[in-house]
Amino acid sequence: MRPFIHENFLLESKVAEELYHQYAAHPAIIDYHSHLSPKIVCENKNFDNLCHIWLQGDHYKWRAMRAFGVAEHFITGKATDKEKFLKWSEVVPYTVRNPLLHWTQMELKNPFGIDELLNPGTAESIFQRTNALLATEAFKPQALLKHFKVEVLGTTDDPIDTLEYHLQLQKGDTYTKVLPSFRPDKVFKINTGNSFRQYIQQLEAVSDTEIKNLSSLMAALQKRVDFFDQAGCVTADHGLNYLPLQGEFSEEKINQVFREVLAGNDEKAEEISEAYTFWVLMELCMMYHEKNWVQQFHLGALRDANAYRSGVLGPDTGFDTIGDYQHAERIGHFLSSLEQEGKLAKTILYNLNPSDNHVFAAMTGNFQGEGVKGKIQFGSAWWFLDQLDGMTQQLNTLSNIGLISTFVGMLTDSRSFLSYSRHEYFRRLLCNLFAQDIQKGYIPHDLKWIGGIIENICYRNAKSYFNL
Amino acid sequence: MRPFIHENFLLESKVAEELYHQYAAHPAIIDYHSHLSPKIVCENKNFDNLCHIWLQGDHYKWRAMRAFGVAEHFITGKATDKEKFLKWSEVVPYTVRNPLLHWTQMELKNPFGIDELLNPGTAESIFQRTNALLATEAFKPQALLKHFKVEVLGTTDDPIDTLEYHLQLQKGDTYTKVLPSFRPDKVFKINTGNSFRQYIQQLEAVSDTEIKNLSSLMAALQKRVDFFDQAGCVTADHGLNYLPLQGEFSEEKINQVFREVLAGNDEKAEEISEAYTFWVLMELCMMYHEKNWVQQFHLGALRDANAYRSGVLGPDTGFDTIGDYQHAERIGHFLSSLEQEGKLAKTILYNLNPSDNHVFAAMTGNFQGEGVKGKIQFGSAWWFLDQLDGMTQQLNTLSNIGLISTFVGMLTDSRSFLSYSRHEYFRRLLCNLFAQDIQKGYIPHDLKWIGGIIENICYRNAKSYFNL
Amino acid sequence: MRPFIHENFLLESKVAEELYHQYAAHPAIIDYHSHLSPKIVCENKNFDNLCHIWLQGDHYKWRAMRAFGVAEHFITGKATDKEKFLKWSEVVPYTVRNPLLHWTQMELKNPFGIDELLNPGTAESIFQRTNALLATEAFKPQALLKHFKVEVLGTTDDPIDTLEYHLQLQKGDTYTKVLPSFRPDKVFKINTGNSFRQYIQQLEAVSDTEIKNLSSLMAALQKRVDFFDQAGCVTADHGLNYLPLQGEFSEEKINQVFREVLAGNDEKAEEISEAYTFWVLMELCMMYHEKNWVQQFHLGALRDANAYRSGVLGPDTGFDTIGDYQHAERIGHFLSSLEQEGKLAKTILYNLNPSDNHVFAAMTGNFQGEGVKGKIQFGSAWWFLDQLDGMTQQLNTLSNIGLISTFVGMLTDSRSFLSYSRHEYFRRLLCNLFAQDIQKGYIPHDLKWIGGIIENICYRNAKSYFNL
Repeated sequence: MRPFIHENFLLESKVAEELYHQYAAHPAIIDYHSHLSPKIVCENKNFDNLCHIWLQGDHYKWRAMRAFGVAEHFITGKATDKEKFLKWSEVVPYTVRNPLLHWTQMELKNPFGIDELLNPGTAESIFQRTNALLATEAFKPQALLKHFKVEVLGTTDDPIDTLEYHLQLQKGDTYTKVLPSFRPDKVFKINTGNSFRQYIQQLEAVSDTEIKNLSSLMAALQKRVDFFDQAGCVTADHGLNYLPLQGEFSEEKINQVFREVLAGNDEKAEEISEAYTFWVLMELCMMYHEKNWVQQFHLGALRDANAYRSGVLGPDTGFDTIGDYQHAERIGHFLSSLEQEGKLAKTILYNLNPSDNHVFAAMTGNFQGEGVKGKIQFGSAWWFLDQLDGMTQQLNTLSNIGLISTFVGMLTDSRSFLSYSRHEYFRRLLCNLFAQDIQKGYIPHDLKWIGGIIENICYRNAKSYFNL
Repeated sequence: MRPFIHENFLLESKVAEELYHQYAAHPAIIDYHSHLSPKIVCENKNFDNLCHIWLQGDHYKWRAMRAFGVAEHFITGKATDKEKFLKWSEVVPYTVRNPLLHWTQMELKNPFGIDELLNPGTAESIFQRTNALLATEAFKPQALLKHFKVEVLGTTDDPIDTLEYHLQLQKGDTYTKVLPSFRPDKVFKINTGNSFRQYIQQLEAVSDTEIKNLSSLMAALQKRVDFFDQAGCVTADHGLNYLPLQGEFSEEKINQVFREVLAGNDEKAEEISEAYTFWVLMELCMMYHEKNWVQQFHLGALRDANAYRSGVLGPDTGFDTIGDYQHAERIGHFLSSLEQEGKLAKTILYNLNPSDNHVFAAMTGNFQGEGVKGKIQFGSAWWFLDQLDGMTQQLNTLSNIGLISTFVGMLTDSRSFLSYSRHEYFRRLLCNLFAQDIQKGYIPHDLKWIGGIIENICYRNAKSYFNL
Repeated sequence: MRPFIHENFLLESKVAEELYHQYAAHPAIIDYHSHLSPKIVCENKNFDNLCHIWLQGDHYKWRAMRAFGVAEHFITGKATDKEKFLKWSEVVPYTVRNPLLHWTQMELKNPFGIDELLNPGTAESIFQRTNALLATEAFKPQALLKHFKVEVLGTTDDPIDTLEYHLQLQKGDTYTKVLPSFRPDKVFKINTGNSFRQYIQQLEAVSDTEIKNLSSLMAALQKRVDFFDQAGCVTADHGLNYLPLQGEFSEEKINQVFREVLAGNDEKAEEISEAYTFWVLMELCMMYHEKNWVQQFHLGALRDANAYRSGVLGPDTGFDTIGDYQHAERIGHFLSSLEQEGKLAKTILYNLNPSDNHVFAAMTGNFQGEGVKGKIQFGSAWWFLDQLDGMTQQLNTLSNIGLISTFVGMLTDSRSFLSYSRHEYFRRLLCNLFAQDIQKGYIPHDLKWIGGIIENICYRNAKSYFNL
């Protein structure tokens, strides 16, 4: 019997099979946004066991376990790695229709070559076999990246990061080019009191710049942008609920409150917060434009929706959720302000609430620019939407409202070295969608033409867009 | 020729047929939320005619008739039952692609055994035949419930209700267990002046508690919760446009305005309304948690959108509509507040605007708890969405974002004893969706495993969730 | 090999083919809302070349060219018509999955009879052949309208328009009846200073009425409504982001600010703007009711989202976008206010953000009226949504929530005489959807019945609804 994950998984027609195997399966991966650790890549040590590479830090799996009623002891608690893995194996059979079932089995199939479905009956054996493999040379981080043909890996780095592992990696000759990305989220958290002041102190230290007002803040950040740029950075990324509005506050006022906050007076931090974010982000975006970087915005999340439990377990432990904000005027206003200055960099807008897909897709079309194909991108389905329906909706909306042929395609956004199957998942889906259209007569049956567009989406568009 | 409603209606493949007939058709029905009258069940009298059991109070049909230009005389006016039925039969052929066509024909098929399509040519005969059947023993309320295998029926009851019919029914040995649900909507209507004061007086009387402030209000409500609990109640339900925010008002201030309102001064009732709702609802929800009840929230409606005509005809006459509120922060805030107190009961969130499906589905995942499978549920497609597309979207979003395997499934939410075909409708659709996934290779072709999950969704999950 | 656009394009089954060819292909077109120029129809001159009839003013194509990185020189700049056309031909092969590919090839097929796919290899030849045809009698504006069987053409006209071309056309005996529509958008722009005052002066002149306050404004507009009515107008149209709320301002206050603005004092124009719009629009809508006109509202756009570039190139140059407003309470409030007065005219609500489809569809059901089939219509998918997915979603939501059998169907809303293929596009899709339902057993296999409903949607419903 054919295994669950087989060579034509998700490919529902001969045309789909042909498109995938001829045009989509072979191109290398440009994973322009991930949360993989450059330290782990650089140190290149074997993983202890499947739990370490698979369950640690994976809040998708944690949420599923909680929904199944599993005790926190087996999720983020003190249970052993093996206990946690066995508990996860009890949940897997109940993840049918959730992408976790696909990801689980695709990741067991590749790189481990395991066809069995994970469940309590197979868990013990799978744990042993994968751990044996994980102990080998072929399963070290760098070997895994090469195995998955990850040509470029974009990490996510704070402006205060020393980028030591990136610099060290660049001296070597790894298959994968590991590039930093500039993610200044903490710069905007003016309303977090001491942790903000502490962060500013770290920024002062690493940039060797005394920060006493907005202009010295920007001077310090400019130094970090320059440093990242020299370290090969080609993109900045931002996690924001929504893009900030300028509001009524003057630069002088913002500057004044910023100085008060530095001096330990947080009284007006909350009310100035959005205007401050607007001001600083505008300045940063103009720097990105100067460097010809791509600016990415991950929008639409509501963080720590379960305030109580995320207070106990900390951020990124599975209590973030999909928000419902009104984005259109905000995005339009922000990008217009940059356009006005002649400083609108290439931009990718990611959206977490599919109800906003049309707003995002149409918005990109207002800011396209001369000489760049798809200068403003509606980014790939993200986080909660990184599943067949979510990706299909993003691809269809982008197709209907814009030009999918210019799309820079998939990224993992993942914390796990096993997540590269998501590129395969995306490519299979993409080929299947184009094949459906061919079969319905929506697009001409010309596989060379359509295959070329698919290759562009899988590889070439990103390569060119990020100047790689 | 095969009748329109046939044994494989909606089942588009052999796998779907097998799943439905083997796993979904036979389980009994747990209809945990309906608007059926316990009085009618208890008295168990024959219905006068098809109009009485079918058109009276059915604002779905009324809206369709209005959209077709039918005069109000034939809808809620003084036309005879037969005239109204004949007028409805003129509209039915023009309900193609609306769920009313399916519900109409399914309800004629079962329990009446009628295969003909309802239209002006068949109306006379159908009216006669159904009326003849309705006059028999087999078509009395309790017999109909048994016919549809309704094992448990949850009604919707006001805290001031005496539950006399429930208590009487519990003394008998009906096939169907009829349980009250606690629906305190009127407690929150502090901004409705005399009708609010009148309601509070009724509450005082039934609870034998003088209500002069918030704490005596809660004491009275606690008595009613206790009384409902003793009468077998396992759930509370709430119809709210959106969950309330706490706001800035102190408990003292809310208490003060509440006392003013009781004294006949409504000046500040409107501005305090949301904070009052938050405060009272929080207290109630903690009582539900104490009782291990399930709390249900039906969110997203905009009531009386045609203020003029609902003013003339009264509430629930077909002038309510789908609202567009921002729910994420509100729901997150409310459930977090309960979590903080360690008093978050099992919860079902129903959503009326499908654009908010992802917000609801993701939100449930933030509050799942140890030891309960699917503690927080994204409830079944509701009201306007209770149709193939609406149910499919709810099922798919739930599947993609959560664990459909833990879903407590369908409910009628209906005012008619004929609406049990909606459970069949849901089950057929559910089997068809799983079958599609099997055929596409999205889930393994293992009918025992998948059939078991389907049985859980149709019956077992609800039974366990509601402690039945 | 079968050409890309062939007789069964989009028809995926025999039933679909039968429905389309027997019931949908032949009825004439009632294009009740378009932006075609009555002057061009009246003067009836040949078009210079394909660029003139196809690319000029077509911001759909402009946006696609910009997304492909084409320089503005070739879009709205000084490049020659031929250069622009050739540049467009480079983009077309990259419009796969966008409706532009379909529209392009359908418009080449009909009326030009060209089957080749437009691309740089065929562009030269296609430009020559189409230009040769465009120079003939058969391709003059009136001949094209007749060729497409456009029985009625509704244009879009400002209240200050003299309707000279309509009046002149009505004296002749063209196949197509060209009717004006009343579109008073500029009346509402009280916050635009001198251009508003200039407009009011033009309105004074054409209505021979001195406008010094709200009541003389309405007197002037009443004259124009009367004039349009005599010129055969049957509908008014409005482009508004959202319907206005009444707000707190009194009529006296609005009147006072209106008079200040007329006197050149714009200080309070912005704050009064929405209340003014509500007041004037209410008055206008009551006039429409008096005339038994249909009132159309195109809602949901965010205009000039790229404020900078639309400032440079002017309005309607491709920088408008999809907005995300909260419509439910606004629409409910506005229509209720008219219902209250007993003056709610037949109404079509168009929605630009598909996330609001359910809100719009459900809202129509609250205001349906005696004696008119589908008095309140959820209008056809519009602008960015005028593609297969967008139309499908509108049709499905309308079907699920209302009665699609009463739908007045498609309109072009276009600036080009070639856009009539969109009616064909719509009809093919419509037949395919009904055919799918028949094949799935969702609706009975009775082609005469279903075909009749399709004919109604394509032609008869609009004819009756607009009293044509």
